[in-house]
Amino acid sequence: MPIITVKMAKGRTIEQKQKFVENITKEAARTLNVKEEWVTVIFDEYDRENWASNGQLHLLKFGQGFGKKGAE
Amino acid sequence: MPIITVKMAKGRTIEQKQKFVENITKEAARTLNVKEEWVTVIFDEYDRENWASNGQLHLLKFGQGFGKKGAE
Amino acid sequence: MPIITVKMAKGRTIEQKQKFVENITKEAARTLNVKEEWVTVIFDEYDRENWASNGQLHLLKFGQGFGKKGAE
Amino acid sequence: MPIITVKMAKGRTIEQKQKFVENITKEAARTLNVKEEWVTVIFDEYDRENWASNGQLHLLKFGQGFGKKGAE
Amino acid sequence: MPIITVKMAKGRTIEQKQKFVENITKEAARTLNVKEEWVTVIFDEYDRENWASNGQLHLLKFGQGFGKKGAE
Amino acid sequence: MPIITVKMAKGRTIEQKQKFVENITKEAARTLNVKEEWVTVIFDEYDRENWASNGQLHLLKFGQGFGKKGAE
Repeated sequence: MPIITVKMAKGRTIEQKQKFVENITKEAARTLNVKEEWVTVIFDEYDRENWASNGQLHLLKFGQGFGKKGAE
Repeated sequence: MPIITVKMAKGRTIEQKQKFVENITKEAARTLNVKEEWVTVIFDEYDRENWASNGQLHLLKFGQGFGKKGAE
Repeated sequence: MPIITVKMAKGRTIEQKQKFVENITKEAARTLNVKEEWVTVIFDEYDRENWASNGQLHLLKFGQGFGKKGAE
Repeated sequence: MPIITVKMAKGRTIEQKQKFVENITKEAARTLNVKEEWVTVIFDEYDRENWASNGQLHLLKFGQGFGKKGAE
Repeated sequence: MPIITVKMAKGRTIEQKQKFVENITKEAARTLNVKEEWVTVIFDEYDRENWASNGQLHLLKFGQGFGKKGAE
Repeated sequence: MPIITVKMAKGRTIEQKQKFVENITKEAARTLNVKEEWVTVIFDEYDRENWASNGQLHLLKFGQGFGKKGAE
């Protein structure tokens, strides 16, 4: 505990993921009053054909590719 | 808000996904009283070796392949 | 299969939920090629203190209460 | 996008939640290269009778109450 | 790891939950080749107005109450 | 109902999954008082670059590969 799940578009590097994990784990320890070793972080990555907003698949909205639009 | 997640067998086309997204987003706007631009839809697609019912993997129940049985 | 989960703010009536369930189940049968009896729909309802966007809890953004803003 | 879900024991204050939301939203913007307004954070809070580790409900491990053990 | 989430109707006792946790944790250790102390089990409990199958809320299908029908 | 989701590292065989499904479905029927045909089990499998604990991706902690450490 806690378990933090991050759903996002595919395309981040391992460096980005590690940096994010490190910093939100510290933040959880600091703000939510838990030990760092009890924090789990999981990434669920999505293709644009599996994510939609405003009634439209992001594949059709943004085209092929990953994570370049600042909205994913 | 709202966030609608659809877990299902792999094998739908982009056209099926887009049609479904379009119609349930409209339905959410109409029935749940939200704006369409606030509706997110996410698809989680599964291989048959990762879905089971009645104590049996769908891979063993339905064989190799996708979404042909009307139960997935 | 499929399993459709709807995360949204508290405050919808049973009539709204039933109407939504009915219509998205029909839509799933029509568009995703499944039988209606295989569609499960689950609602996860949230208080505004447990939902945030743009770095702010919806409790602080919208105040006390439920589902009146069209963004939830 | 992204959608960050935090599963944890009940018992955090609104101030703790707001602080956490603020800081991880900034961190997501900085590290994952998204706009802050696209980040959603959701808290799923649990009673100790609904969370278990090592084969034991936390209710039986920690007793009644909330979030005092640094492991939740 | 692993994290096992059980979505079900409200109404099980603490004894039922503890028994289930104990046995599936052992089963995970035995079959999935993990240590028991790394298994987390979480229960998400639902009211019948928040669960539907075949296009109908379980509240309307089963009436008020909990977990008496063997289908929940 | 119930729906049991198992998040774990990639690398289990179909035999392991089938065995686990079979036994936890029986256990759910026995302990939670449901019929076996109403139990759904879903596996969400993760690469080590998408799972972290104690502020570190398991890819960096355990190296390349799958499910050999008893902690996944």
